[in-house]
Amino acid sequence: MLFYWDIAGVFIFAISGALAGRQKSMDFWGIYIMALVTSCGGGTLRSILIGDVPPFLFTQPVYLIVAAVGTLFARFFPSLWDMFSREVSVLDALGLGIFVCIGTDIALDHGLSWWAAAGLGVITATFGGVIRDVLRNEVPLIFRKEIYATAALGGSLLLMGLQSVGLGQQWCIAIATVATAVVRLLAIRYAINQSSS
Amino acid sequence: MLFYWDIAGVFIFAISGALAGRQKSMDFWGIYIMALVTSCGGGTLRSILIGDVPPFLFTQPVYLIVAAVGTLFARFFPSLWDMFSREVSVLDALGLGIFVCIGTDIALDHGLSWWAAAGLGVITATFGGVIRDVLRNEVPLIFRKEIYATAALGGSLLLMGLQSVGLGQQWCIAIATVATAVVRLLAIRYAINQSSS
Amino acid sequence: MLFYWDIAGVFIFAISGALAGRQKSMDFWGIYIMALVTSCGGGTLRSILIGDVPPFLFTQPVYLIVAAVGTLFARFFPSLWDMFSREVSVLDALGLGIFVCIGTDIALDHGLSWWAAAGLGVITATFGGVIRDVLRNEVPLIFRKEIYATAALGGSLLLMGLQSVGLGQQWCIAIATVATAVVRLLAIRYAINQSSS
Repeated sequence: MLFYWDIAGVFIFAISGALAGRQKSMDFWGIYIMALVTSCGGGTLRSILIGDVPPFLFTQPVYLIVAAVGTLFARFFPSLWDMFSREVSVLDALGLGIFVCIGTDIALDHGLSWWAAAGLGVITATFGGVIRDVLRNEVPLIFRKEIYATAALGGSLLLMGLQSVGLGQQWCIAIATVATAVVRLLAIRYAINQSSS
Repeated sequence: MLFYWDIAGVFIFAISGALAGRQKSMDFWGIYIMALVTSCGGGTLRSILIGDVPPFLFTQPVYLIVAAVGTLFARFFPSLWDMFSREVSVLDALGLGIFVCIGTDIALDHGLSWWAAAGLGVITATFGGVIRDVLRNEVPLIFRKEIYATAALGGSLLLMGLQSVGLGQQWCIAIATVATAVVRLLAIRYAINQSSS
Repeated sequence: MLFYWDIAGVFIFAISGALAGRQKSMDFWGIYIMALVTSCGGGTLRSILIGDVPPFLFTQPVYLIVAAVGTLFARFFPSLWDMFSREVSVLDALGLGIFVCIGTDIALDHGLSWWAAAGLGVITATFGGVIRDVLRNEVPLIFRKEIYATAALGGSLLLMGLQSVGLGQQWCIAIATVATAVVRLLAIRYAINQSSS
């Protein structure tokens, strides 16, 4: 189940990266690399920082494939993205939540303290977007969108809090993911410190 | 033999990086760091990604020296670069090919799958240029020059194909390098999706 | 003693990063991340390059806290920075010196050659600023401020020279740090190749 949400998050983030590349009139390869770094860059940086190399991107082909599908999707059906912008926002917010939970848990598995795990959860969820913005030569959006990183940090802390009271792992991840997504979506709804992403 | 081609590739890529720094009126150190990251950045990133640390740049002084010579060359004889632009293109294309082969083979030596080795071959050959462009505050050229990455990917796959049919290692590398370079040069010749680099 | 200087250097570099983020009207998180990468980015890159992971930033909470204090300081008392610009310059120059010494010694401890240790000392002291400038979408200042990297390199070589003649470790670090700072401050004083930082 976690795996499928991870894949869904990669897919959504890949489309967001591919569209960002498209705006800068990149060619197919450029757009694909944008899709890859946006969806897998945060997790790859986490892997490097905790010495968990080679990163998953180089051991499991599924990520390359999902990012390629997202790239094709962004290339041929960019208008669908606008048409379903509400659904896209929900999926994007859930992707943020699931990435935070995965990053936090992997850091804990590697023996890091809770505060370091929270940091790596936030990095996992947000640094793909930072690299995306650096590559397209813009000041990273996340640095000007407070609620995005705050939602991620809150989700990571909530996950560890729930785990520490002994709740089942599936429930912890589900609740923390949804809570992260809800905070994110409320921020969009009420336009708190928010651009269009 | 492979070693000398590697050095030749580093030299050419270093000059290209130094000239890119010069255009942004960097000082001597800036230009030298540009030469270093352009020529060794891709290989260093590959080393980090597969856990092969410290990277060669910090264990073999020859790369620092070759990049320094390239920097001096770019500083004092920039006009030679224009005068011999045809020869420079050939060397640059051969450098691309040899970097792809080296990156692919090192990844295979570390037990990665063929598709991951192809990815690391492309990263070895192209990410020095990506870092160069990020540092001089431009959208990476490679993202808008399809044929460059395509030639690298093709070279990596050809190398592994030749190796799988049992051809001698020297021949595999020679053929894959030349094939990569030829694709690259044909793309320049017929101006397919190409800037001046 | 070394530890307190390290903390002082992190504090000063964090304020410099936070102010750089403030200029780009980043939000609180953006400014805090700028403070963190400016003060700890060089050391983190060094850790990744020598395989010393997870980096100190993820094992010792003190750095997060010091960077947070620096961020608050930059947010609420930015004018103090201007008022004491002379003192700030001295602290910044001492921070440069101490970071160079720490980076050099850690690299030597990991068995690297003197020239690689010098390189890692310079990276430790300067790459936080490089990442800061990349994130705020500018060509890194260090690439246009020759004397900054030169002072760092000189400090690293001096440190190793003093160590090789058998001087006590405390003295070696004190002398190399002060020498680096003096070169840096003289460069500011006589406006050699210098912006305001």
